[in-house]
Amino acid sequence: MAGRFEIPKILFENTVRQALLEDLGRGGDLTTLSIVESESIFSGRIVARQPGRMAGRRVAALAFELMDASIQTVQTRADGAALQPGDTLMTVEGPARAILSAERTALNFLGRLCGIASLTAHYVEAIRGTNAGIVCTRKTTPGLRALEKYAVRCGGGANHRFGLDDAVLIKDNHLAVAGSIEEAVTRVRQSVGHTVKVELEVDTLDQLQQALTVGVDIVLLDNMKPETLRKAVEMVDGQAITEASGGINLESAAAIAATGVDYLSVGALTHSAPCLDLGLDAG
Amino acid sequence: MAGRFEIPKILFENTVRQALLEDLGRGGDLTTLSIVESESIFSGRIVARQPGRMAGRRVAALAFELMDASIQTVQTRADGAALQPGDTLMTVEGPARAILSAERTALNFLGRLCGIASLTAHYVEAIRGTNAGIVCTRKTTPGLRALEKYAVRCGGGANHRFGLDDAVLIKDNHLAVAGSIEEAVTRVRQSVGHTVKVELEVDTLDQLQQALTVGVDIVLLDNMKPETLRKAVEMVDGQAITEASGGINLESAAAIAATGVDYLSVGALTHSAPCLDLGLDAG
Amino acid sequence: MAGRFEIPKILFENTVRQALLEDLGRGGDLTTLSIVESESIFSGRIVARQPGRMAGRRVAALAFELMDASIQTVQTRADGAALQPGDTLMTVEGPARAILSAERTALNFLGRLCGIASLTAHYVEAIRGTNAGIVCTRKTTPGLRALEKYAVRCGGGANHRFGLDDAVLIKDNHLAVAGSIEEAVTRVRQSVGHTVKVELEVDTLDQLQQALTVGVDIVLLDNMKPETLRKAVEMVDGQAITEASGGINLESAAAIAATGVDYLSVGALTHSAPCLDLGLDAG
Amino acid sequence: MAGRFEIPKILFENTVRQALLEDLGRGGDLTTLSIVESESIFSGRIVARQPGRMAGRRVAALAFELMDASIQTVQTRADGAALQPGDTLMTVEGPARAILSAERTALNFLGRLCGIASLTAHYVEAIRGTNAGIVCTRKTTPGLRALEKYAVRCGGGANHRFGLDDAVLIKDNHLAVAGSIEEAVTRVRQSVGHTVKVELEVDTLDQLQQALTVGVDIVLLDNMKPETLRKAVEMVDGQAITEASGGINLESAAAIAATGVDYLSVGALTHSAPCLDLGLDAG
Amino acid sequence: MAGRFEIPKILFENTVRQALLEDLGRGGDLTTLSIVESESIFSGRIVARQPGRMAGRRVAALAFELMDASIQTVQTRADGAALQPGDTLMTVEGPARAILSAERTALNFLGRLCGIASLTAHYVEAIRGTNAGIVCTRKTTPGLRALEKYAVRCGGGANHRFGLDDAVLIKDNHLAVAGSIEEAVTRVRQSVGHTVKVELEVDTLDQLQQALTVGVDIVLLDNMKPETLRKAVEMVDGQAITEASGGINLESAAAIAATGVDYLSVGALTHSAPCLDLGLDAG
Amino acid sequence: MAGRFEIPKILFENTVRQALLEDLGRGGDLTTLSIVESESIFSGRIVARQPGRMAGRRVAALAFELMDASIQTVQTRADGAALQPGDTLMTVEGPARAILSAERTALNFLGRLCGIASLTAHYVEAIRGTNAGIVCTRKTTPGLRALEKYAVRCGGGANHRFGLDDAVLIKDNHLAVAGSIEEAVTRVRQSVGHTVKVELEVDTLDQLQQALTVGVDIVLLDNMKPETLRKAVEMVDGQAITEASGGINLESAAAIAATGVDYLSVGALTHSAPCLDLGLDAG
Repeated sequence: MAGRFEIPKILFENTVRQALLEDLGRGGDLTTLSIVESESIFSGRIVARQPGRMAGRRVAALAFELMDASIQTVQTRADGAALQPGDTLMTVEGPARAILSAERTALNFLGRLCGIASLTAHYVEAIRGTNAGIVCTRKTTPGLRALEKYAVRCGGGANHRFGLDDAVLIKDNHLAVAGSIEEAVTRVRQSVGHTVKVELEVDTLDQLQQALTVGVDIVLLDNMKPETLRKAVEMVDGQAITEASGGINLESAAAIAATGVDYLSVGALTHSAPCLDLGLDAG
Repeated sequence: MAGRFEIPKILFENTVRQALLEDLGRGGDLTTLSIVESESIFSGRIVARQPGRMAGRRVAALAFELMDASIQTVQTRADGAALQPGDTLMTVEGPARAILSAERTALNFLGRLCGIASLTAHYVEAIRGTNAGIVCTRKTTPGLRALEKYAVRCGGGANHRFGLDDAVLIKDNHLAVAGSIEEAVTRVRQSVGHTVKVELEVDTLDQLQQALTVGVDIVLLDNMKPETLRKAVEMVDGQAITEASGGINLESAAAIAATGVDYLSVGALTHSAPCLDLGLDAG
Repeated sequence: MAGRFEIPKILFENTVRQALLEDLGRGGDLTTLSIVESESIFSGRIVARQPGRMAGRRVAALAFELMDASIQTVQTRADGAALQPGDTLMTVEGPARAILSAERTALNFLGRLCGIASLTAHYVEAIRGTNAGIVCTRKTTPGLRALEKYAVRCGGGANHRFGLDDAVLIKDNHLAVAGSIEEAVTRVRQSVGHTVKVELEVDTLDQLQQALTVGVDIVLLDNMKPETLRKAVEMVDGQAITEASGGINLESAAAIAATGVDYLSVGALTHSAPCLDLGLDAG
Repeated sequence: MAGRFEIPKILFENTVRQALLEDLGRGGDLTTLSIVESESIFSGRIVARQPGRMAGRRVAALAFELMDASIQTVQTRADGAALQPGDTLMTVEGPARAILSAERTALNFLGRLCGIASLTAHYVEAIRGTNAGIVCTRKTTPGLRALEKYAVRCGGGANHRFGLDDAVLIKDNHLAVAGSIEEAVTRVRQSVGHTVKVELEVDTLDQLQQALTVGVDIVLLDNMKPETLRKAVEMVDGQAITEASGGINLESAAAIAATGVDYLSVGALTHSAPCLDLGLDAG
Repeated sequence: MAGRFEIPKILFENTVRQALLEDLGRGGDLTTLSIVESESIFSGRIVARQPGRMAGRRVAALAFELMDASIQTVQTRADGAALQPGDTLMTVEGPARAILSAERTALNFLGRLCGIASLTAHYVEAIRGTNAGIVCTRKTTPGLRALEKYAVRCGGGANHRFGLDDAVLIKDNHLAVAGSIEEAVTRVRQSVGHTVKVELEVDTLDQLQQALTVGVDIVLLDNMKPETLRKAVEMVDGQAITEASGGINLESAAAIAATGVDYLSVGALTHSAPCLDLGLDAG
Repeated sequence: MAGRFEIPKILFENTVRQALLEDLGRGGDLTTLSIVESESIFSGRIVARQPGRMAGRRVAALAFELMDASIQTVQTRADGAALQPGDTLMTVEGPARAILSAERTALNFLGRLCGIASLTAHYVEAIRGTNAGIVCTRKTTPGLRALEKYAVRCGGGANHRFGLDDAVLIKDNHLAVAGSIEEAVTRVRQSVGHTVKVELEVDTLDQLQQALTVGVDIVLLDNMKPETLRKAVEMVDGQAITEASGGINLESAAAIAATGVDYLSVGALTHSAPCLDLGLDAG
């Protein structure tokens, strides 16, 4: 399923190039250039050292290709696939200098994206059996948003908005300025185009009632306990999409999902996922 | 101490600008532009919601300044300072539109850098009383290496090389190509300039003996148990700087440091540090 | 009203800088540098030579400021204001070399954006008295989308999606691939996040019926005659937002708007608006 | 003839790439990625829906190629060729996702460039039988100057200077500063290199006389009526190239050309040419 | 006089910024950041250690300003002024860290530009008393063309074309393709705009005769001995501008200039000028 | 040997592209586009017109390839090889338009890099028979550091640090701030990582004694006469690497090298090397 959403290479090519340049610096890989002859060929594979979930195969492949267009990579695990320790994610063959020079950059991307997919998969697993979905937030690594959103999809999660301009999310600071929920939503409706959805963050059932009265597409139910969430879902009764946020972790997720909310919003998917441990083995 | 190493703004200005543009997209902050008047002023402060260690104040300040040069930020915690929940890290005052539009970008940087500094501080604390230092690796987030290396310093750690071109690190794949430690080091000495240090990764005491015979500046003792490390340190006896790596975590760090190695190399500092929880509160 | 939507300067700064560099080339304004002394001061105003609608004052001001930060511009017409021949849009004062060097770039932006706002205002005027709105399309000048969308707002129009990633619009080529409206919408619902609206283009009332059965947020009624449009609006009956497109011009707009559709989609607003005639007069 | 002047791809590659990125945003073409399988192949052709003149085939082809290098385009009309409604301009075949994602960008470029070529051809036609040529100005779309100048050539027009640094054009504001035509031209001759031509704008026959006395390469006869232009041409008598500008439109062009001026300068060619209506049809 | 041609800062700002980033690398000036406190102030002056000619003061000043906007520079020698050993070119005062970090970049630019101006001044001096001028070529340092052309002006020289698109220069390889001088010039006249000058390189008096017959703006007399040059000048007799090139050095320049040619073209001005020796002295 | 250090193409690709764009300007090579048909093929070779040393073959090849990917270049001299007048460095074959348009850019890079390699080879020859090496400095052309450092290696020289962040070099201005050599070195040791070497510039034997007491990796012996250098080398006695700088030229180099210093630091290698005279000959 995640395959449907593979972002086009043109969207991440510059990110990968800059990452290579960051590592190569002015002089390139001094160690490899000193020791390895230019004709030397390397053949290896990227191997998982932990269980997890695959994400980012085209990004890693691109790191090698940008270093040398003659490097051949073969994907052996599709993005979204489960990984076991010892699994080969991809094979790499080509000029040894280029492969060793790009190795760390490729692994840095892959480890991070697999890490996000893996953590997402844990959350998805934690709420299995409910109707809820797991969604990410804008708490992503600066510069890597599109890739990290993609990794969330690879882990079975869904995406919330990609930035400040593709959906409206009215929060407490906005309400404080507008004076009321009604006024805030009215201003938004007068300003944004009809292709844009409007979401409103509410902290209480009272606010929720106002939101339903004025009408919004999505309500973000922030920091509510399961029993309150359950009441909120009843009140909403299909008039809006419901989303729970705040203090959601792997322990609390199941109980929150069981309240009937449509989505659980989890910032940790992208801001705190540990890297998946991977290595490039020769042979 | 970390102050000595504050990197100049010119080195991270483009990174911060790109992060803002990534979040603003084509249209900017639709919510804020719709609701908040252009003359509206916002005054707030960035507050810690967890204990940790401060890092990245100038980066966060720059996110606001690039959005609107008239935003004023006042730093209330120096980089490297310990943070308690509720502590104010910095205050922000200026045009409300610009502050709310830059908020997430500023917090994404700050949360990540404080997270790295905090985790580093835990490692430093774990080996207190030994003579060892904690150093980071090249397992950093693509695009953020210099900032993340700085965050490590804020946490009390030290930096290993910044990239492939500022020091030599001979690893197993290089040795396989060269055929022997002696040949590898010889090729390096013939190729790199005299201002570059040479480090060699060894897995066994036998390899270590060869390294000492040929002479290198630093030996990386990889995946050795404490008792082996202790022997290695004895063998080295001041002829090279010693560095331990592989499987070091907060539990094992003290025992490894007690072996007498000079440095513990910890990739997790940058590749798996969870974000520090921060928020922007009005008022 | 348009003021609510002024996009932040950081979004168009690079566009303006590149436009200046394109005109200055390698050597700069040879004529001005040869004739005008560096201390010479110029004072002038940008004047409308035709009636129209104002848009882009901050863009023009930025062209001067990027050339020389000491140039002072004073806006005398707000974006969205009506312009009469002879009206002063803004005054400019500062180093003569820089002003004359940036003049053409500033006018090129301003003339284009005012031209779009002016044409939009004509369309808005043409359907006055109906409940319909005028919206633009993605048929914009490469590189200037956000500015041109802003100019549409200055003219009283509204914006359709800004790009391929902020809303879904299913067209005939997509339907051909999917095989049916139901299948196409189903695939979309499984793939995109819940913050994204889904629009479907239909050519016939039969297709419209299918669209309403499967449920979409917006229907694009393409190339329908007014009588068909009227039936379509009746069929929709509030279940979706309605948008008419195809062959809409200043003559046909009123009749189309009178059918009860919510929006008229007009590509010409951005792809064929003539420039508004403006000049920089000394004094 | 226009083929002689095809600009090298390196000059517009970045412009096309940026246009694609502008449309794709952070997430890419959501609709297409959701509905169309990655293996799906699309075959289609770009068709004219209006009569006009071809320009920009390599730019449109590049938009597809940058999206996916395996897309094949075949040109069926050369740049500069006349187009009739229904004519196929080029065929496109390759991965459906990439073609549909790049379609709008390719058409936006092509429609604009064909529009400029078409309008230019109308002007050229209007003055057929005279010895005059049609030239464009610097009133081009920011960022697209070289492409638009090329489109003018495809329409049978010629180019005036490309920017502020490849020829001198002394205008009224310059004369005001210099004090006299003689002083202005003298300063220019002392400053610019001998490979640069000098043009002077004159409003009256009196100014023209001064220009001829001091000697310039080209005189721009601004806003002169045909009878005045005729006298001006007589006065110049081959001592300089003559160029008429100001208020030239399709109605007045023939009479102006008949005065014997060498060139008619028409800003509308690039600042107000309507887009040529084109579409991408499957099959 | 050179002041008339100071290129605007926007044209070289990115060049200076990239040069700073090249020197600072990922980590910045390790030495200075380690030793110098952030509050420390430095006051110094840039001093000539050789005689020469000043060029590039604004470029050097910008290197300091981009590093820290609070650095103050005061110019004590105008561009174009003669320099004696010990002369202070400019003073610098501000944060010591930033000044010491930018020092090498500022001096690298200044030394190179002063070197070019100085060598140009030697050539100008060598032909004093003749009517000829010294001009540069396109044999400039990649990336620095506009600055180096400016330095030539500071030394009293004039500029030939800035690139391939601001004048035509027909050389032997072009003639070989076209078949004859007449055909080559005809093709050019049919293709390029009327604001572009046409220059033709000739090796023999026979070719010169053909050039004069067909008519060009400038003739480049390549590798002719003084006596041949003298005859060429006589043949031209004011019908074209004359330029000598090939094997011109400080010894041969006077004799060549004495032949009556208008310009001597000297590639060495930019491709082989030694750096002027400069230093930054404290106090 | 230099081959070991060929920097990867990704490190200089953007530099070459920018250089081409600088020369092509907005309009491209007007002369060639006017005269040469698009199907025309050119076959030629780059020939040395002076004796020297080869450097930069891949850079020149890339200039042609970026202009047109179908151009074929064949290297006939390896980087580092000696060149005699008339030697063919490389052959070039492909579309004539692209080759003639890229010619000057390719030659500008190649001439400069060969010039640096040639001068370096002269210095290396001058000290033949001693144990000393020749090293370059940071006095490089802005934007070309990595390429120029590579050219030094091609000439048989070695590289000093590449920038401010890959080694520490404590100079007089730093010492003035720190107050003493001991304090300066202590601050550095507390701040920089253990992979960074520390070099100290000393002017006197007294300073040298302090340097040896506190311990540094390298001492830069600045502006010392041969007899002082000899004493310095004796004092150092293997405790540090020794480097001589200041006033070293082709005449003085041998005597300085004979003092036993390890390296001679020569800024002129990169800041004042004359271009090697090369040409592109047809056939």
